[in-house]
Amino acid sequence: MIVNGKHFRTVWFDKGLVHMIDQNKLPFAFEILTCKTWEETASAIRDMNVRGAGAIGVAAGFAMAQAFMSAGRTNRMECLKRARQAIEATRPTAYDLFYATQKVFDSITTTKAIAQAQLIADDSIRECLQIGQVGEKLIQNHTGILTHCNAGWLAFVDHGSALAPLYEAKRNTKDFTVYVDETRPRNQGARLTAWELGNEHIRHFILADNAAGFMMQQGNIQMLITGADRVARNGDIANKIGTLEKAILARTFNIPFYVAVPLSTFDLSMKSGKEIPVEYRHPDEVLYLSGSNRKGQIQEIRVAAPGSDAINPAFDITPAEYITGFITAKGIIQANETDIVNLFH
Amino acid sequence: MIVNGKHFRTVWFDKGLVHMIDQNKLPFAFEILTCKTWEETASAIRDMNVRGAGAIGVAAGFAMAQAFMSAGRTNRMECLKRARQAIEATRPTAYDLFYATQKVFDSITTTKAIAQAQLIADDSIRECLQIGQVGEKLIQNHTGILTHCNAGWLAFVDHGSALAPLYEAKRNTKDFTVYVDETRPRNQGARLTAWELGNEHIRHFILADNAAGFMMQQGNIQMLITGADRVARNGDIANKIGTLEKAILARTFNIPFYVAVPLSTFDLSMKSGKEIPVEYRHPDEVLYLSGSNRKGQIQEIRVAAPGSDAINPAFDITPAEYITGFITAKGIIQANETDIVNLFH
Repeated sequence: MIVNGKHFRTVWFDKGLVHMIDQNKLPFAFEILTCKTWEETASAIRDMNVRGAGAIGVAAGFAMAQAFMSAGRTNRMECLKRARQAIEATRPTAYDLFYATQKVFDSITTTKAIAQAQLIADDSIRECLQIGQVGEKLIQNHTGILTHCNAGWLAFVDHGSALAPLYEAKRNTKDFTVYVDETRPRNQGARLTAWELGNEHIRHFILADNAAGFMMQQGNIQMLITGADRVARNGDIANKIGTLEKAILARTFNIPFYVAVPLSTFDLSMKSGKEIPVEYRHPDEVLYLSGSNRKGQIQEIRVAAPGSDAINPAFDITPAEYITGFITAKGIIQANETDIVNLFH
Repeated sequence: MIVNGKHFRTVWFDKGLVHMIDQNKLPFAFEILTCKTWEETASAIRDMNVRGAGAIGVAAGFAMAQAFMSAGRTNRMECLKRARQAIEATRPTAYDLFYATQKVFDSITTTKAIAQAQLIADDSIRECLQIGQVGEKLIQNHTGILTHCNAGWLAFVDHGSALAPLYEAKRNTKDFTVYVDETRPRNQGARLTAWELGNEHIRHFILADNAAGFMMQQGNIQMLITGADRVARNGDIANKIGTLEKAILARTFNIPFYVAVPLSTFDLSMKSGKEIPVEYRHPDEVLYLSGSNRKGQIQEIRVAAPGSDAINPAFDITPAEYITGFITAKGIIQANETDIVNLFH
């Protein structure tokens, strides 16, 4: 996507270095973070300088490629295994991460590992573009579309999943309004999705997460669209905390709910969402919040009562029954095992 | 309630002055705001130094009493009407406000106006205590209770509505856990409810509003309890934005939803929730957030993408069908016209 007149990928590999747009600084500062080692790249994944299922996967692939570059001749396999384990431990819910580390890990030479990691990035861009083209047909003129969290180009390498159809619809001059759940606790909606949509001049309004139900009840929202971090064989999904709530609300108000995902997000080894591990993150993500102060500096404040604690599940599981369809590069399918297994034949 | 070893009401009247705990400073600082004129008291209601249905009503009654004190002999009725109008315009959704301004406005002398305003405050305290005693029977040992926003003693003069049963249960040594929705955009849950519960040594955890559905799905929550800003004749309620979402989630997961309210919150003139006006507040409440910085100073930061706008409905309407019962000082009633009208006979 274009930022300040220049084309950027979210994360890219160049001469052994992994570069990424620092998403902890966005939208208040646009900075590139460079990771020299697989350990640094793994830290960037864990600290969420890079986040979003697709971008995490690509970054993990690049980290694995860096591990190939740094592993010595002795104990090579041990080094690679240790690196793979450490990289996979950074964000346990994101299935794309495991897909990428395995693909690169299975490479025979360092050159092939780098090429494989690069291929994952290039494939992601092509697939997201296709998701956009498939999903664009669902975007009606003069409608309101609710999205949760950020499944835009920042969550992938380019284009995004849930936002790709909106970008494609905008290119086709369709007129619509996007309602952006702010997506507490990390505010990826208010910070990242709103920033992306602003860059693309798409009309949008941020909502407190509490307001989505009311906006549906008032008739302002005709479609809910999100990404997913993992899709089980039966169509259950794991996605950002709050997705379950929005899905239940959409069903209550008869609003279709589409989930846009690349094929790498389907995990056929998981029979249902009950098997997907859910990551709990630090309570401080709820108790503190970062933003820009009057001087434009990024500052952290406590937004909760001193002494009170929080519980912070980062993802939730939305049962397949709430999902109208999956938007994939191969077309729109229903959220059931038959359709999902068919995707891979 | 007791703060730092001393008993406080949320708002009180003394020799023509209206004093209140400044809820814009809580929980980071405990300060008393004093309003010398009805205009200052009205500003404090509008700026939410005092908030919560009951406390707004009592403060509005005191403001009206101040108007009696300051109105000259000439144009007295005009002055009082103008004051009433201005006070009623501060927060259009809260029905208790209109109840209080009318009651005091109808007084014949200034002395009677002050006595009437004081009576509204004293009645509120007695009624909240009764709500607590009635609702306490619903609190089971070893359960999780979700509450949204702040319907505690800070929202009234003392005891509160939704939190009153919890305080009573705690006094009866019941063991339970409260899950506190942070309640964006103004974080009354994370700031005020958590602060109140901490003061009373009740075990509680703050949740991002997005997490309530997941916690219900996981079996952690056995009851939802909130207050209401207005109850229509058919049992529909207006309450803090997000109440509708939590009510729908509770229904989905078969969790009872109780609404604790004083009688003054019932508005028999409204046939249904469709007639209740919903207040939209400034988008900056979503885009900016205040909290305590590392030095303990209250600071405001922008938490959303620069240039992006927000829509900020402050309340939503929850249909009666989602409400298991109303906890009132006269007992628990169902959310239907027959039960509600019977309350007043």
